[in-house]
Amino acid sequence: MEKPKAVLFDAYGTLFDVYSVGLLAEQLFPGKGEALGVLWRDKQIDYTRLVTTSNHGSHYRPFWELTRAALRYACKRLALDLQSAAEDRLMNQYRHLSAFPENREVLQALKDRHVVTGILSNGDPEMLGVAVRSAGLEGLLDHVISVDSVRKFKTHPDAYALGPQVTGLDIKQIAFVSCNAWDALGATWFGYRTLWVNRYGLPFEELGTQPARTGNSLRDVLEFF
Amino acid sequence: MEKPKAVLFDAYGTLFDVYSVGLLAEQLFPGKGEALGVLWRDKQIDYTRLVTTSNHGSHYRPFWELTRAALRYACKRLALDLQSAAEDRLMNQYRHLSAFPENREVLQALKDRHVVTGILSNGDPEMLGVAVRSAGLEGLLDHVISVDSVRKFKTHPDAYALGPQVTGLDIKQIAFVSCNAWDALGATWFGYRTLWVNRYGLPFEELGTQPARTGNSLRDVLEFF
Repeated sequence: MEKPKAVLFDAYGTLFDVYSVGLLAEQLFPGKGEALGVLWRDKQIDYTRLVTTSNHGSHYRPFWELTRAALRYACKRLALDLQSAAEDRLMNQYRHLSAFPENREVLQALKDRHVVTGILSNGDPEMLGVAVRSAGLEGLLDHVISVDSVRKFKTHPDAYALGPQVTGLDIKQIAFVSCNAWDALGATWFGYRTLWVNRYGLPFEELGTQPARTGNSLRDVLEFF
Repeated sequence: MEKPKAVLFDAYGTLFDVYSVGLLAEQLFPGKGEALGVLWRDKQIDYTRLVTTSNHGSHYRPFWELTRAALRYACKRLALDLQSAAEDRLMNQYRHLSAFPENREVLQALKDRHVVTGILSNGDPEMLGVAVRSAGLEGLLDHVISVDSVRKFKTHPDAYALGPQVTGLDIKQIAFVSCNAWDALGATWFGYRTLWVNRYGLPFEELGTQPARTGNSLRDVLEFF
């Protein structure tokens, strides 16, 4: 099989560690940091699906707003009193999530092979810009693609269609990398050659479709080449 | 405001107790029954959204199949060895979920007021038929509407549109009742006059829209009249 000409990465959970908010959450709410981090993330994804499924874009709100809404929900659900100063601190932390340690090395290895690189993310352009700059990845990414332009979140086909549209490549020429099983599944359904990076030893989705590859680090993307 | 001419109820979680599988789950997997019940339900909803968001119907599978897939996922996630006999028992239990105790009384009160009654559910027709018969609700429901005919799950607008289509009523003449906050939100967005029955003391979704009414029992639907 022909080698991919481009690799697109999911951002949140894949390049950036969404659970790196846990430390601050634990400082603010001792004993509840981890639970808050998990519920916040689950609800954030939940909300992307809810607005996208419900009305084809008319209930769309940028990822940043849904992230804030999810934080408020998670705190209410856990009976945590979220004051606005704490909310701002947690949201600011989300803007500057830790990057996974292998990101730079893997992106550099792809650039050395003259592979087009990019992000295809639910994040809105401003969030993505800050995250990419904070992680020092600017020079290593040819494209930073946000679903914001189509006002639908992954796993909607209009979101995944941005990959071929922006790169000008055929879907079969693009590899897609995500640590989120649902995203790896959605991308595979859409037609990408997909690597699921299973960072946390989870089962894959039980919906009868498997990604082209499964690994445990972004480095495994190099096996496409 | 004019009184509703019809009331449509969500089924799973609203008329039928999705957590009533917990007892059998606990027998089969001591110490893990509650966790399995919760994760099974969460994943089931997750899968309805995933297939509906991903491809406008082409990845649709009936609720029964998604329920089985969700059970398999939940067991793998919790490292429980699900043998096929146990799977069949749990699925059979799901087919015969406990009905909430106030169902009959509330439906009867609506019939006494000459209100059209029905279910509008993600469940497929066979599942719904068995559940309705098991609960002895046949004579009290004018319509049992499954999203299966449109191959999209709530909160997709095509699913909610079945209410006016099947009853022949205007959306403003129909009250919708759900114990699931996401469903109450989706129905409100679609245009129904919605009662959210908050059985478990949870926060509502933080997406800026509130249902017309919030209560803690199906009986609260009578306040529309």
